[in-house]
This record gives sequence, C-alpha cells and structure tokens, in this order.
Amino acid sequence: MSSGEDDLIARYFKPIAADPGALRLADDAAVLKGGGDDLVVTTDAIVEGVHFLSNDPPETVAKKALRVNLSDLAAKGATPAGFVLTLALRDANERWLAPFARGLGDDAAAFHCPLLGGDTVSTPGPLMISIAAFGRVPPGGMVMRSRAEPGDRIVVSGTIGDAALGLAILKGKLMASDAAVRETLLGRYRIPQPRIGLAGALRNYSRAAMDVSDGLAGDLAKLCAASGVSAVIDAASVPLSEAVRGLMQQGQTSLATAVSGGDDYEILCTIPEDRFEAFAEAARGVGVAVTSIGAVVAGKTAPKWLNAEGKEIALPRLSYSHF
Amino acid sequence: MSSGEDDLIARYFKPIAADPGALRLADDAAVLKGGGDDLVVTTDAIVEGVHFLSNDPPETVAKKALRVNLSDLAAKGATPAGFVLTLALRDANERWLAPFARGLGDDAAAFHCPLLGGDTVSTPGPLMISIAAFGRVPPGGMVMRSRAEPGDRIVVSGTIGDAALGLAILKGKLMASDAAVRETLLGRYRIPQPRIGLAGALRNYSRAAMDVSDGLAGDLAKLCAASGVSAVIDAASVPLSEAVRGLMQQGQTSLATAVSGGDDYEILCTIPEDRFEAFAEAARGVGVAVTSIGAVVAGKTAPKWLNAEGKEIALPRLSYSHF
Repeated sequence: MSSGEDDLIARYFKPIAADPGALRLADDAAVLKGGGDDLVVTTDAIVEGVHFLSNDPPETVAKKALRVNLSDLAAKGATPAGFVLTLALRDANERWLAPFARGLGDDAAAFHCPLLGGDTVSTPGPLMISIAAFGRVPPGGMVMRSRAEPGDRIVVSGTIGDAALGLAILKGKLMASDAAVRETLLGRYRIPQPRIGLAGALRNYSRAAMDVSDGLAGDLAKLCAASGVSAVIDAASVPLSEAVRGLMQQGQTSLATAVSGGDDYEILCTIPEDRFEAFAEAARGVGVAVTSIGAVVAGKTAPKWLNAEGKEIALPRLSYSHF
Repeated sequence: MSSGEDDLIARYFKPIAADPGALRLADDAAVLKGGGDDLVVTTDAIVEGVHFLSNDPPETVAKKALRVNLSDLAAKGATPAGFVLTLALRDANERWLAPFARGLGDDAAAFHCPLLGGDTVSTPGPLMISIAAFGRVPPGGMVMRSRAEPGDRIVVSGTIGDAALGLAILKGKLMASDAAVRETLLGRYRIPQPRIGLAGALRNYSRAAMDVSDGLAGDLAKLCAASGVSAVIDAASVPLSEAVRGLMQQGQTSLATAVSGGDDYEILCTIPEDRFEAFAEAARGVGVAVTSIGAVVAGKTAPKWLNAEGKEIALPRLSYSHF
C-alpha cells in the first residue's frame, strides 16, 4: 500500500539517498551526526520563471538548485554534509522527474553532499525547488561576512558576469552570434560552479567571505556593510571571461551590467595582505582562479569603483532584488 | 544601500532571529553547534490552496508551517534546535507579512525553536512556505519508524479526525451548525498542536514512532511496512473529540473519514507492553492524552481494523496523497 507520493520518492529519490543518515527516505526525519563539528546551515530556493526557465533541461535545474546552496557552504569554509529537498510540482511527470533526479544524484555524488530527506508537494503554480544544505566546520570555524578589516585585499574567484549575460541571451535581450560564446554563457547561467575546493583555503586565510549571487557590486556592498568598512575597487581588474570581453568590445554589454547581474556563484572574500600569497597558492592547488580586485578601507560609505584613470564609476543598479 | 528583499528580512524576520547562530540573518548561513548530540533534520512545506487556504489568517499559516515540522521532531524524540524558512511570495504585502512574522515569532519563542536563516523569493504562483527544522537527540537516540515489534501496543496522542473535518467545513463540504464545534474543528485544522512535550517519553519508552500527517490508517500502514510487521486495531478505541463524535452521531461523517483524513499532527507510536504504564504516566506528566488502540502483530499484511464485534472494517481510502 503506497500512495503516489511514496512511489515517486521510492522511484526517483531513494536511489540517490545512500547516506545512512537518510534512513532510505523511509522515516520522518534524517540524522546528522554532530561529531564535534559546527554545522553550517543554508537554504536557497529556485522558482520556475524567476531563477530558471520552463524549458531549461531538468538536469541543469536540479544541479543549479543544489549548487547555489553548495556555493554558500563553500563561501563559509564548510565541507558539504548533506541536504534536504522540497519539491513543489504541478504533476508527477516522469519525463521531467527522471532527468531531474539523475542530475541531482550526479551532483550529490560529485560534491559528496548526500540527499538526506525532503518533501514533495503539489502546486498549481510554477515549479519550485527549495534546498537546505548542511556543511561542517571545526568549532568556531565558519567564515563570516562581517570580519573584513581595512587593508585586506578584496578577491574574487573565477569570472564575473557570464551568467547574467547567459540569461540575457535566453531571454532574447542579447544577441551572441558566436555559438561557442553562447554556449559558454548559457552554461554558466544554468550550471554554476560552486567553489567547494576553496573552502579550506577560505577557512585558513580569509577574514570575510560570501558568495556572489545577486551581483558583485551589491554583494560587495553587503559584505562591507556587515563588516562596518568600505572598499576601493579597480574596475579594470574585475576578472571577465573572453566571452564577456568580446561582447563588451562589440558594445553589446558593459562592465556595469557584468558586476550587477547576479547568478555568478563565485566567491568574494577579503584576505589580509600578508596571507594573500598563501591563499593564491592554495587556490592554484585546487585549480580555482582568484583575482585581487581592490582593498578594504575604513569608513562607512558605499564601495568606490574606479576606472583605469582613477575616476569613480557610477553603477546604476547594484544588484538583483526580488521585491 | 539595501534592496527590497533585505529590507523585508530586516523588518519582519530579524526581530524573531535572536539566536546567536542566526548571525542576525546578516550572513549567508547559520551556525548550529554540534555539542556531541545527533541532529535530527526534517522538512515540510505548505502550499496555498493545498495545505492552507488563501483566506486563512497569516498568523495561523505561519504557525502551521512551523508546527508541522515540530510535530516531526516530537515524533523522533528530538528537542527543537532551530529552523530555516523559505518563503515564496507574490509580493511583499505588509498586511500579510506583519501578522505572518508575528505568528512565526510567537511560536518560535513558545517552542524554543529559533529562526536561523532563510530565503525569500518571488513567485507568480501560490504562496509557499517551506521549513527545514532541526532537533537534538543524544547520539543514536532518534526514534525510528522501523523498530516496531509484535506485541507492542499501538498508541496515539490526542484525538483523530478533527483537522480533516475542519477542512471539510472550510470547503463547504460539511455543515456544522454548532458554532463551538465549528471553531474547535477549524482551530485543529489551522493550528496543529505539535506534541513536543512527548519527545522525552518517546525516547525513553517507545520502540517506533511517527507523526500522523496523512491520515491515521495510512500512516499506521507506513509504520508497519517500515518495521516489517502488521497490526490489529480496535476501531472503537480510536480517540475522537466530542465534536467528531457528535457529527458521527448526526450521520455527517464516519470513522473511515476520521482515520483517513490527515492533518492530525498527533503521535502514533508503539510501546512494549511492560513500558506502557511508564509511558502513560510520563504523558500525563506533560498533559498529553494518549490512547492504546491496538497491537503490533507479526506478518506483512496490511493492518486490520476491527469493529466492536471483531469484524474487519474496510477503509476505502487510507490517506492523502499529493499525486
């Protein structure tokens, strides 16, 4: 005697819930062994039509839902320990669920972050995937947003702006005639790369960190506000992909768009000057590019963005807001 | 420099996130100190039009969203430690958000289960509230569904069927001319009573437990299946409120409806015979009524429901399923 909901869970999600703490998804709750660590808890949801598009492949929707949470764990210096999933579906459509579960399972395995439990509910509205993810740090080891100090270097991982332009292409707001450029940017929008490899280096060397999800400019302002400091950014040093540089040269986009677009899921952190080399070395060791883009300064004013001539750039919109 | 989303969080949710681990909701994640305990993790979502109605008071929607999760923690023998919230809203409507946050904050305080973090997203569809809640048990102490043994008593807390009839009244499918009956049943639908007080007694005396959320008959079948056992239930002993008894006497509802309706959020557990008195005594100590309704028996057949004459009752529908 099984309901449709139980069948759905048994069929698609039990196979990817191999952790003993998941109790084969056959109980009301999961168990996370404490083991002396602090647990870092984060939650992020993605909504059809807002964070992903109706015709995005189900595999990439699943990966994005998990990865936006893994990105938060990485920024906090945490090692993934598991996640729970809430899935709001209009119907139990196998053609969507099978690839969704496959994508989720592949990433859960790749990032050593097992599915521990969840809830599946019906909705007449858009699909929504909400994940709460858990990571471990040694006691007191979570990297905060609020500890940046004047003199720290400001560092970002990877490249900035790709995902926002990927979304602009999908929405028909931006033309990218070069197929390779198009694929690169779409891929960055659909499948973020959580910088889990950087977690240890962040714990060891950074003073403050967060992930860049709502746009670099706005997220930097949040980090500065949380730390009670300001910043000076050398706009020309913001790391951009070849794809974005090319579109900028064609006049199709601007730096302001790249740094306010969101969905980057890169790491923004501050590193004391005397630890920067060690941090950069550790980042090279895990194959993640990191770039110093400015410095933390004393004060409570908004971060200053300077162009190559040292003149301040006005950013019309700092970040994405839902409301 | 704050976005609308940040304003909303600062205004409504920061005041109810007083736990130090919540970091004033100003970071990407929260910290849960391990402290040697096992953490019990559960997640449940409620959707407008499915689990609550558009015109339900926002306070009760908030309370229900948290309480359905607290009910799971109680059934697992866990002491609440905190929760994270995903709120999918069509707009940031203060007249809805202010009472919602107040209801949530009142319950977070009453049940010692602080808000630790969350995500607020916009949706064009129905409101949805997803909560992941955390509880603590001593290592290895979580009460499972799967440990029931033949000879155990089958016990439920409170009364069964009230909430399902409350929903039927709200949907206009059931008339309740008596205002007191009506209010009782609506209250049970809108504001479940998580049996947090029973957590210690369940840990100490029960062999298996779960909460009754999808209907007693279906949930009992799940517990039996998870434990590899069957059960015999004395249907006449199922605890019913005066309100439900009255409606049954009027021929407006039936026992079958009461035990398959869902939304009870009572505890279903199995207790070895020699521990039953101690369990009942502990339950009295925390002011929760518990009733023995049958026994676990060997076998893998579906649980048998017997009437006062010992004849088997056929239940047309065991439980609520979303799909």
